[in-house]
Amino acid sequence: MLALGLGAGVPSAAGQTTPRARNVVLFIGDGVDDHQLTIARNYLLGADGEFVFEAFEHRAAAKVQTVLERDPRVPVYVGDSASGGTAIAAGVVTSRGRVATRAGTGEPVSTILEQAAAAGKRTGIVTTSSISDATPASFAAHVRRRWCQGPREMWPTPTDPRCPEDLKANGGLGSIAEQLAGSGIDVLLGGGYRYFDQPDEDGVSVLRRASDAGYRVVRDAAELVETSEVSGKLLGLFGDDTLPVEWVGEAGGRARPLQLTEWGQVIAPQPFGCVANPSFGTRPTLQAMTRAALTRLESAPDGFVLMVESASIDKQAHAGNPCGQIGETRALDEAVRTAVAFQETHPDTLILVSSDHGHSAQIVPWPSLFASRQDAQYPPGKVARLLTLEGGEMAVSYGTNTTYLEEHTGTQVPVYAQGPGAAAVRGLIRQSDLFGIVRRALALE
Amino acid sequence: MLALGLGAGVPSAAGQTTPRARNVVLFIGDGVDDHQLTIARNYLLGADGEFVFEAFEHRAAAKVQTVLERDPRVPVYVGDSASGGTAIAAGVVTSRGRVATRAGTGEPVSTILEQAAAAGKRTGIVTTSSISDATPASFAAHVRRRWCQGPREMWPTPTDPRCPEDLKANGGLGSIAEQLAGSGIDVLLGGGYRYFDQPDEDGVSVLRRASDAGYRVVRDAAELVETSEVSGKLLGLFGDDTLPVEWVGEAGGRARPLQLTEWGQVIAPQPFGCVANPSFGTRPTLQAMTRAALTRLESAPDGFVLMVESASIDKQAHAGNPCGQIGETRALDEAVRTAVAFQETHPDTLILVSSDHGHSAQIVPWPSLFASRQDAQYPPGKVARLLTLEGGEMAVSYGTNTTYLEEHTGTQVPVYAQGPGAAAVRGLIRQSDLFGIVRRALALE
Repeated sequence: MLALGLGAGVPSAAGQTTPRARNVVLFIGDGVDDHQLTIARNYLLGADGEFVFEAFEHRAAAKVQTVLERDPRVPVYVGDSASGGTAIAAGVVTSRGRVATRAGTGEPVSTILEQAAAAGKRTGIVTTSSISDATPASFAAHVRRRWCQGPREMWPTPTDPRCPEDLKANGGLGSIAEQLAGSGIDVLLGGGYRYFDQPDEDGVSVLRRASDAGYRVVRDAAELVETSEVSGKLLGLFGDDTLPVEWVGEAGGRARPLQLTEWGQVIAPQPFGCVANPSFGTRPTLQAMTRAALTRLESAPDGFVLMVESASIDKQAHAGNPCGQIGETRALDEAVRTAVAFQETHPDTLILVSSDHGHSAQIVPWPSLFASRQDAQYPPGKVARLLTLEGGEMAVSYGTNTTYLEEHTGTQVPVYAQGPGAAAVRGLIRQSDLFGIVRRALALE
Repeated sequence: MLALGLGAGVPSAAGQTTPRARNVVLFIGDGVDDHQLTIARNYLLGADGEFVFEAFEHRAAAKVQTVLERDPRVPVYVGDSASGGTAIAAGVVTSRGRVATRAGTGEPVSTILEQAAAAGKRTGIVTTSSISDATPASFAAHVRRRWCQGPREMWPTPTDPRCPEDLKANGGLGSIAEQLAGSGIDVLLGGGYRYFDQPDEDGVSVLRRASDAGYRVVRDAAELVETSEVSGKLLGLFGDDTLPVEWVGEAGGRARPLQLTEWGQVIAPQPFGCVANPSFGTRPTLQAMTRAALTRLESAPDGFVLMVESASIDKQAHAGNPCGQIGETRALDEAVRTAVAFQETHPDTLILVSSDHGHSAQIVPWPSLFASRQDAQYPPGKVARLLTLEGGEMAVSYGTNTTYLEEHTGTQVPVYAQGPGAAAVRGLIRQSDLFGIVRRALALE
């Protein structure tokens, strides 16, 4: 085993020595930006709180970059999980919706998990979404459009041309689930059973393909624990699609459009707190999945790369559900704690925490800064008033879409790092630089 | 002169040595957060750009903290320039609207400029707002409410009780302008002439009080240059109140509420670019004021502390004017460049760049991520589409207030640092920690 800083360095381009990491655990908080983090921190830990990763020694801001599909020279200023995932996983700026393929040409791009596996490392993916959703897919699959999660999703719909070019019959690699089943990734834990429970072009279910490829399939938290001592590849599918979130708003509390009285005064929404989701069921928490993955990967003779995503921070922000996004940020923090505990006994582990794109929620003053004016002052979108655990009241506004789901935003996102190679995380970087930072830390180049 | 790292260190609480700074230049971008920065950077420098301060060696995130006036134990999650300015200037968390006074009690709190002056250093304030506005005032005055800028503003209005308790006749320190005129601060450059052109309680104009206290008063850029060789205290008042901004939207372009056709389709706003403000007049730029202040302070026998604020990033965001806020962020960057050039010849200078609170603007996808749906998808607030200098198109949405000005937001804000003592800027800090960081860098404690 390589020891930290003891002859384990590799020379970098600048002639300096980068400490070599044996293992990398890369966390992605989907849709996390400074503002979403502050919302969750205020609620959970108070105005003077700190998440475990915020105490990491190294931090940077990452520019989110994406381009037009029809002309990849033209920058676009708001990304998605596919373009963001591809930038992080493969170091390539692509168009929204593309999974580890180049904008314009569709050429597949090699990912850090593929490169780590080729170098003899074990690999893993853990997520609270379908494991065939855009972020995890970007590390292990290559398709034209992120919606092509299972064989049935390859066919055009009235609003989406989907991925006929990626059908195996057309010389493609097949759907994301099919690619994952054949990926050789050692640990795959998340949701998305329904994409695996589909027949492929030959009429064989993707689940069967996975079993044939050596995967043991587990379906709930108890089974996950039971298999912790069993070696071999593991595919955990703990729900049909995105997994249920850990927290919800008390009594259905979420952000809602404000109501006015007939005299034009705003009716203040009732404040509420967050509670455990009664529909959480038997699925393992993100922390439990992370622990299970680390336990399996710990014995890897040449180390491992594990990607862990807290996916529903994004999905709950889309839905204007602050308790959902706060609970999933808490889940991220707890999963990172597990990795930090692992790092204490395995100091040759690099931990990175970042995000794929910004999101919509904003903390706004309630009442308005201009409440002394005669006319009503209120945000035009949806608002929730949350009672924080320290006894304050925090108003959260979602004001990016009038009719349907809230939008992603284009802000830069934070990056936190600790362990060998972490010092490269500094200043203002590109999201795509994370790929090179991991490669250099692992001495893959 | 003290040399960087050569016997000039002071032991810190942890027993480590903090390199001692002789001079500090503290920049405040009013209302700057990660998102506002990304908007300006994308427009000015492109998706892969970088402001000069973003390349600084040290960075942190600062939690913005404020409390209820009626019960200062209760946290509030959105600050203003007065509470933020007081936290930075005096290390004290106070309620919104308070200028260097404690929430609840009103006790004045000692500021970094006062402490530096007491230790024999010269001091300066440069801003694009009235120099009696909340941010600059927090460094040099102590009043109950930020609106009490001149003697005439001390009296209650129908919507604001103002500051009768701060009248000199009531044993107070008088209005902010009166306090500045008596502050002894060596360089005061900004707007706010109208607050100085008022009679005080004895019928003597504040301007006259300033002259009597030894201030030379200048009114435009030419006069500022003319007095660059003249020693003594300088009061530059380059406008009646807030100074005009450097940039505006082409043909009046700003964010506007979206219009729908009679069939419910969104009428896309016309994209536009930013142009120089034809009403900028003869006032000096923020960079010119910063240069003038540094030139005057350079000869200080025991060093100096200079606070430089780009104030209208906030004010233009309130107004939903992205070109205004972009131009003022550019002005901040250029002023920082001047300080960096000064630092090259004066390496015992610590440069800090931070912000007092977050703001409202968000980069949103245009068209919507959900544009393939049949119903129109659009933000409920005001939207501008900007043609960036690199040839992209960036949509900026303001969705925090329906009827009047946009609101501040509660996000954490960035901090950048370079020079002796800068290494203390790391991780997640409190805004109020900046006070201690400057004190320790200057060995004031």
